[in-house]
Amino acid sequence: MGKRDIVYGLGENVGGINKRGSLYESFCSDDFDHTPDKSSLYAAHNFILIDGDKQIGLFFDYPGKIAFDIGYTHKDILSITSEKSNIDIYIIEGDNLLHIVQKFRNAIGQSYVPPKWAFGFQQSRWSYPNDKSITEVADNFRRNKIPCDAIYMDIDYMEDYKNFTIDKTKFPNFPNFVKEMKNKGFRLVPIIDAGCKKEDGYDICEEGLENNYYCVDKNGKPFVGAVWPGKVHFPDFLNPDTREWFGDKYSGLIEQGIEGFWNDMNEPAIFYSEDGLQKAFDKIEDIKGQNLDIYSFFDLKSTMLSISNSMDDYKSFYHNVDGEMVNHYDVHNLYGYNMTRAASDSFSSNYPDKRFLLFSRASYVGMHRYGGIWTGDNKSWWEHLELSIKMMPSLNMVGFLYSGADVGGFGCNSNSELVTRWTQFGIFTPLLRNHAALGTRLQEPFSFDSETTDILRNTLNFRYALIPYIYSEFMKSSKTGDMYIKPLSFEYRDEISRRVEDQLLVGDSLMVAPIYKANTFGRNVWLPEDMLLWKVNKYNNIEGLKIAPSGFNYIDVDIDEIPLFIKRDRILILGEHGENVAAINSDEITLIAFVDNCATYKLYDDDGETNQYKAGIFSELIITISKRDDELFNIETKTNGLSKIKKINYNIVTNKGRVLSGIKTI
Amino acid sequence: MGKRDIVYGLGENVGGINKRGSLYESFCSDDFDHTPDKSSLYAAHNFILIDGDKQIGLFFDYPGKIAFDIGYTHKDILSITSEKSNIDIYIIEGDNLLHIVQKFRNAIGQSYVPPKWAFGFQQSRWSYPNDKSITEVADNFRRNKIPCDAIYMDIDYMEDYKNFTIDKTKFPNFPNFVKEMKNKGFRLVPIIDAGCKKEDGYDICEEGLENNYYCVDKNGKPFVGAVWPGKVHFPDFLNPDTREWFGDKYSGLIEQGIEGFWNDMNEPAIFYSEDGLQKAFDKIEDIKGQNLDIYSFFDLKSTMLSISNSMDDYKSFYHNVDGEMVNHYDVHNLYGYNMTRAASDSFSSNYPDKRFLLFSRASYVGMHRYGGIWTGDNKSWWEHLELSIKMMPSLNMVGFLYSGADVGGFGCNSNSELVTRWTQFGIFTPLLRNHAALGTRLQEPFSFDSETTDILRNTLNFRYALIPYIYSEFMKSSKTGDMYIKPLSFEYRDEISRRVEDQLLVGDSLMVAPIYKANTFGRNVWLPEDMLLWKVNKYNNIEGLKIAPSGFNYIDVDIDEIPLFIKRDRILILGEHGENVAAINSDEITLIAFVDNCATYKLYDDDGETNQYKAGIFSELIITISKRDDELFNIETKTNGLSKIKKINYNIVTNKGRVLSGIKTI
Repeated sequence: MGKRDIVYGLGENVGGINKRGSLYESFCSDDFDHTPDKSSLYAAHNFILIDGDKQIGLFFDYPGKIAFDIGYTHKDILSITSEKSNIDIYIIEGDNLLHIVQKFRNAIGQSYVPPKWAFGFQQSRWSYPNDKSITEVADNFRRNKIPCDAIYMDIDYMEDYKNFTIDKTKFPNFPNFVKEMKNKGFRLVPIIDAGCKKEDGYDICEEGLENNYYCVDKNGKPFVGAVWPGKVHFPDFLNPDTREWFGDKYSGLIEQGIEGFWNDMNEPAIFYSEDGLQKAFDKIEDIKGQNLDIYSFFDLKSTMLSISNSMDDYKSFYHNVDGEMVNHYDVHNLYGYNMTRAASDSFSSNYPDKRFLLFSRASYVGMHRYGGIWTGDNKSWWEHLELSIKMMPSLNMVGFLYSGADVGGFGCNSNSELVTRWTQFGIFTPLLRNHAALGTRLQEPFSFDSETTDILRNTLNFRYALIPYIYSEFMKSSKTGDMYIKPLSFEYRDEISRRVEDQLLVGDSLMVAPIYKANTFGRNVWLPEDMLLWKVNKYNNIEGLKIAPSGFNYIDVDIDEIPLFIKRDRILILGEHGENVAAINSDEITLIAFVDNCATYKLYDDDGETNQYKAGIFSELIITISKRDDELFNIETKTNGLSKIKKINYNIVTNKGRVLSGIKTI
Repeated sequence: MGKRDIVYGLGENVGGINKRGSLYESFCSDDFDHTPDKSSLYAAHNFILIDGDKQIGLFFDYPGKIAFDIGYTHKDILSITSEKSNIDIYIIEGDNLLHIVQKFRNAIGQSYVPPKWAFGFQQSRWSYPNDKSITEVADNFRRNKIPCDAIYMDIDYMEDYKNFTIDKTKFPNFPNFVKEMKNKGFRLVPIIDAGCKKEDGYDICEEGLENNYYCVDKNGKPFVGAVWPGKVHFPDFLNPDTREWFGDKYSGLIEQGIEGFWNDMNEPAIFYSEDGLQKAFDKIEDIKGQNLDIYSFFDLKSTMLSISNSMDDYKSFYHNVDGEMVNHYDVHNLYGYNMTRAASDSFSSNYPDKRFLLFSRASYVGMHRYGGIWTGDNKSWWEHLELSIKMMPSLNMVGFLYSGADVGGFGCNSNSELVTRWTQFGIFTPLLRNHAALGTRLQEPFSFDSETTDILRNTLNFRYALIPYIYSEFMKSSKTGDMYIKPLSFEYRDEISRRVEDQLLVGDSLMVAPIYKANTFGRNVWLPEDMLLWKVNKYNNIEGLKIAPSGFNYIDVDIDEIPLFIKRDRILILGEHGENVAAINSDEITLIAFVDNCATYKLYDDDGETNQYKAGIFSELIITISKRDDELFNIETKTNGLSKIKKINYNIVTNKGRVLSGIKTI
């Protein structure tokens, strides 16, 4: 590699947008400690993109463990090693970085599209234990006038963590409760885990055993691991029959009113296997008898720590692939992918015209066609806010447009400032979910002081006002293979733009520069060209628009402000907020345009619920603003399909910084 | 607290220079995982400094656990809680932040002064196993012409980890080896651990038992814990008799030629106690019998993980304080302090006129009189380079001037870029040591590619050239209670200077702005006033001096460059490099001055080996450069004591950027 070459890619992983200097390994891992030394997270996204003298994309289609030494062993040497030789390598050339990504994306298929309500704010916690506590959270949102579309049901909603069951003591009348919540404007989103409890009389267990739907050990007996329910079997998602059977099980919940799911623990996570545990106990027994020396003690400790997700366990079970026994270890990275595919395929067969919310923890390239991902069990660390910023463009490169991190951080305790700053960035990610772990401090937007509640209300109202733009940009990116979130370098080729890792392009019109450090009231922002700066405090208070000149700009940013940059000759579209997405039904939009010469925006919309858009049933409102002289602009609109927009409140900022506001009716 | 108030302090801890937003706890902890959620590291430095409408220092003199909630529970509320009421609180007022620190420092006593060779580069690894491997490392330094003054001996040099022993199979003739190494220009620095092996016939064990020098359990029997040697007793360092006895044991190594020590594991770290281990085994036995459910499994895991450094163990042993049995837990934070005091007191009695290198892992406010500290077992993470930058000024506030982090990172694997950038910052810290853990990648300066070796040679040569300045500034700070490393806010009061966390003032003349992110070739630097920028590639290549204007400056910084800023009307002094400190014996210096009007520098020096400086035996060369007109400057020198400097190569940069160079003889 040349000294200044950049290596992008690897989707969900630690490290920067530029991956140079480290050793990465694709092996979907249930590891809740995303420290900088890790080489894998939950996904295997074997795509890299080299920006050197030549620009080139490389996709390594390989289902097992593969290592990427990107200038770690020697700073200028890139070396990729798969354990076996059954690897397909795709070399993708193109006119520029974005073009290469588009070609790759067009090859791997169109990105998953969720229903429109899934662009609303979503609240989660491990766990809201029952219908009462969920109702209380919902009421708190409404009481505090903070918009929210969905509340999550983490593992405790199930009866003994059994997939597709509902604990009746916690939810005495679940279908009714789902209906009630929907009437209040909230969807409930239950978790589905990969492992299915081994229990006599449990239908999922019995049907699976009867039909050989589970992974088996070397003797052909159903493999037993332990996860949340205790002992479980793992559905063999590489078997199409298993996929069809398991996927159809989601219907049981759908029939009770559920419209969204998150698939978890599908690397798969294995807390222990019986063999693994027995070996550990044997070792403990051995060591106990001896006069324990220190290295035996550490051995003991590491024995206990390495019981979970052990390679021995992954090597000890098998899939049935077209009648052939295939060792799990060799195809490990396809497991979560095929679980999500199972659900998605079933939705398509059983509810062909309905969109469902669906996202997964584990994934492989290609799963982006079936669902989104969240970035797993991060922590309430400022470093993880920063990591989530850097991960977003990498996820977009491999097609995971519908993605986002646990806002506020999952593990460890958050504080009001971190939740605020993280939400202020999170509003630009398609999946916007606040989630926190068992035993951690409450971090719902109303859990801190009243000033913080006020700031988060304004922040989330702004998110809802952004939905027309976000949805439009998302859908266009999904359809064309474009990236919804991009590094600056994909549009601007100066050396600083090539290297900036803490600013992102969001859709076609915006650049964001989040605050991701504690106790910070400003930051430097690199502008590759003049842009229009809007420090957003309330979205319907469009004041202080200011042209920020190209070069570095230090921007003061108070705790209640979000600095937003509108590119030259681009238009930002704003709607209105509502208590949820469905409540936004306005026939007017507001636009902020920074027009030097001519700006065009194509506002895409559709019903947000069905797949009719695939049949061409959607609307496009094309707005063109062109300059006649410094004071006069033409605003033209053209509509394809049935747009409901009747009125545009426009704010045009000229290259002299003059703001021309007015109303245009359509 | 006011919204923009800053809370400084807490010495060695995670978090920023500004501590707001988190919960900290002073309880010296052997925790090798310095993640952002931790509340304690190895030290208890209960000093905070509030910069609000009023500026105020607070010192909480308390030997046990004390919590600092600095705007965590509520963002604007500061709350400090000690477990018991035997607390002395000192409120320190002053004219400004630095004045408050100086008053505090003058109250707690003068900072430890090491020998001058301890300002050289030091190389460590856990472990260079024997005399051969140490010789090889030393030869590698000389072969690569990289300066180095000391090589460290980690735990494996001992016979079965027994303090004050030497493993004779690894070091057949230790005194001879020490002499050989010294002839080559290297000091050897052995580690000393707190716990002493419980072993019949081991003199330290037997003498301690005979004389009741060890901590005891509730029945008055010597307490047994397990650390590296296996079962150990812990010297009762709160007992003056124990201190004298243990301190004098260092003489055994001193008589073999050793001149420096690092005290480790003195929180104290306890891997396990017999009680703790038995309880864990009992629990495992209990759980094994049952049909293990998942929560029992996690219980089992956390049982194993919580065996080490458990509060139960800390509560189970006692000190003899003036005949009274005092529970260890209540005075925990004084343990490492008193171990280092024991060594220091013994050196003072037995070798009153000789300075020794001495630093510790655990510490408490006041220990800075006896030794320095290193910041413990960090990791090869960019985040830990950043953390080390932020920690340095906090350590200076509590008097730990002789301090530094493990350059390159201790745990995990480093790479060439991280070692380079970390060294480029480390050259400004008084303790400059590269150290890495067992099992990690080699990270000595010559362990990577030849380009990296070249860069690190130049970087370390620059360190040696800086020693006249560093030593002078260090000694003056030690004597006056000034800070050797300061946050910008201690001199500049604008709002950006108040908040900047990634630039530091080093001594009276310099500001540094390190690179602490991967793949970075430049950064923004805040200049509160015009400063002279020197991008140092080779110290004896003084080219491209440039006045950087006040405000933000984006500075290109290639991998081999160190951006350095000389303040207005200040002078930087440079000497020359040598293979070690002793080899630098030049009678000339070079100065770079940025003179608008008049600049003065007082260059302190002394013999660097003895304590004669306390009796006034030192030299001061006072250099005054004053402007006559744009082209003419007067250079005056005045000498107090016996300065050996005969010649000054001067480079004066005027406020117009003109460089006037020449030679002045004295």
